[in-house]
Amino acid sequence: MRSVAKSWLLLVAFIVFYIIYLLFGALVFSTIERPVEEKLRQDIEALKQDFLNQSCVNAASLEQFLVKVLTANKHGVSVLRNASLSSNWDLASSMFFANTLVTTVGYGQTAPLSDTGKAFSILYALIGVPFTMLVLTACVQRLMYPLVFTPVGVLQRSGMEPRSATVLHFLLLVVLVVLCFFVAPAAIFSALEASWTFLDGIYFCFISLCTIGLGDFVPGTQQDQQYRKLYQLTVMVYLFTGLMMMYLLLRTFHKMADLHGLTAFFQLPRCEESDQNDDGEPIVNEHEELTPPDLANKPLEPGTQPSYNSINKG
Amino acid sequence: MRSVAKSWLLLVAFIVFYIIYLLFGALVFSTIERPVEEKLRQDIEALKQDFLNQSCVNAASLEQFLVKVLTANKHGVSVLRNASLSSNWDLASSMFFANTLVTTVGYGQTAPLSDTGKAFSILYALIGVPFTMLVLTACVQRLMYPLVFTPVGVLQRSGMEPRSATVLHFLLLVVLVVLCFFVAPAAIFSALEASWTFLDGIYFCFISLCTIGLGDFVPGTQQDQQYRKLYQLTVMVYLFTGLMMMYLLLRTFHKMADLHGLTAFFQLPRCEESDQNDDGEPIVNEHEELTPPDLANKPLEPGTQPSYNSINKG
Repeated sequence: MRSVAKSWLLLVAFIVFYIIYLLFGALVFSTIERPVEEKLRQDIEALKQDFLNQSCVNAASLEQFLVKVLTANKHGVSVLRNASLSSNWDLASSMFFANTLVTTVGYGQTAPLSDTGKAFSILYALIGVPFTMLVLTACVQRLMYPLVFTPVGVLQRSGMEPRSATVLHFLLLVVLVVLCFFVAPAAIFSALEASWTFLDGIYFCFISLCTIGLGDFVPGTQQDQQYRKLYQLTVMVYLFTGLMMMYLLLRTFHKMADLHGLTAFFQLPRCEESDQNDDGEPIVNEHEELTPPDLANKPLEPGTQPSYNSINKG
Repeated sequence: MRSVAKSWLLLVAFIVFYIIYLLFGALVFSTIERPVEEKLRQDIEALKQDFLNQSCVNAASLEQFLVKVLTANKHGVSVLRNASLSSNWDLASSMFFANTLVTTVGYGQTAPLSDTGKAFSILYALIGVPFTMLVLTACVQRLMYPLVFTPVGVLQRSGMEPRSATVLHFLLLVVLVVLCFFVAPAAIFSALEASWTFLDGIYFCFISLCTIGLGDFVPGTQQDQQYRKLYQLTVMVYLFTGLMMMYLLLRTFHKMADLHGLTAFFQLPRCEESDQNDDGEPIVNEHEELTPPDLANKPLEPGTQPSYNSINKG
């Protein structure tokens, strides 16, 4: 029981530290980038006024103007009138950026302008990316029992053959994730974002939760949105829980592939064995039953190689 | 020996299929997106001419023009004169895009314009992302012996204490990866890309190999670059091998953390045990020596839960 309490305490500590880390990142990014953005915004505004004051617009001056407009735009500073009202580097937006860095989604609709910002991004992600992976892993580890092992057990007790039970459970889990983390959010996004269709919503959810993050659709970037900061925070929570569920799906699939002999067939690593009985031995010696005969010999002749497993832990 | 041959044959088959999959993606993206891009390009060119033909430019007409220019730009179509010479969706660029999708880097400097393109991106990544993970895992699996187990063994035979050997080996591996996959490429990129500094190069390498992919720096997007297609292909190879090395680092770190009791301390999953001896038993029963006493009881009382491991494989 002490161990259960410690386990949950650790998880809460991880999540609290994760939020503190995001807030810290937001503060630093905001401090570094806001003045640079303000300067660029003023420059581009002055440029626009100069351009408008010209008596005659020719191809060359337009070209020159557009080069500068597009460069500023690449750095998240828009020349448009209504875009100049809000910053990409206020606290909520900076936190959103920090979140896309550490989750490796990286939309890139905003990116650091200054060298200091770039260097800090590297340092921040260097710690943040592994730490986020650790927090996600810890969360998924605790979700495996209620969402994977228990339902599979229930299916088995209802008389299903074990392998079929894992397949049925995986399919049900996929349907649940698709409904809760793709279809429902896509419907909400297409309602909240003026220019998004339902397909755009699905496309955004998919591109985000695969951590591809193209950044052609990013919610909460319109200037006239109500409760924009709250909206950005909600999207951050969505991204985190969504990534957690994607990772849970991946681990469930990996375990299922192990059970069906797929990983052994492709000579890939098995899912880690974290659920062994108290004396540290697997309940069933899976290798005897699962490994095809010619895989009993190790693929890369590791018998001749010293391995981490052969190290006598001092 | 048969098993070794099968292992390498599988790896070659994976890589060949990976290249075919990228080529297939490139062909489809190019076919879907090129006409849409061409249409948008013509529209924006006509708009520019109209704008230039105006007798007098006022704030309202400039604003209207800029909205359209920035929208087109978001979709990768630039209004600038020299940018209209080449397409974002020729075969090499489409393959580059397909590669950034399946590796989840997702720069987003180009993104599909049409609904068909978006739908295809989802389908393509749905198969491509897990498949790429599989190919990367398979490659890393085969690199573990020459790059991890053998050097650690050599260090041990030279008289080092096992745990210190793994730490020293990990640090050496980090230095090697930083030199070969960050410093050297950054120097090359800053030489090849006119506007990049060395810091920009390091920033690009880091943001790419963490799969964040902000897309504020993407090599091979300048129009006047010589051998641009070959350059894009080289960057693709760099991304793939770089990701492989990052994954190798991660696995080595995970194994080292296991050995030092860190994963057990944080109650996280251990690195998968893929290196066991012929009768399927670990050479050293690590659990007896590594697991802290209060962790011998499982954290979430799984004894009461049916688990994948307790399933009798039929």
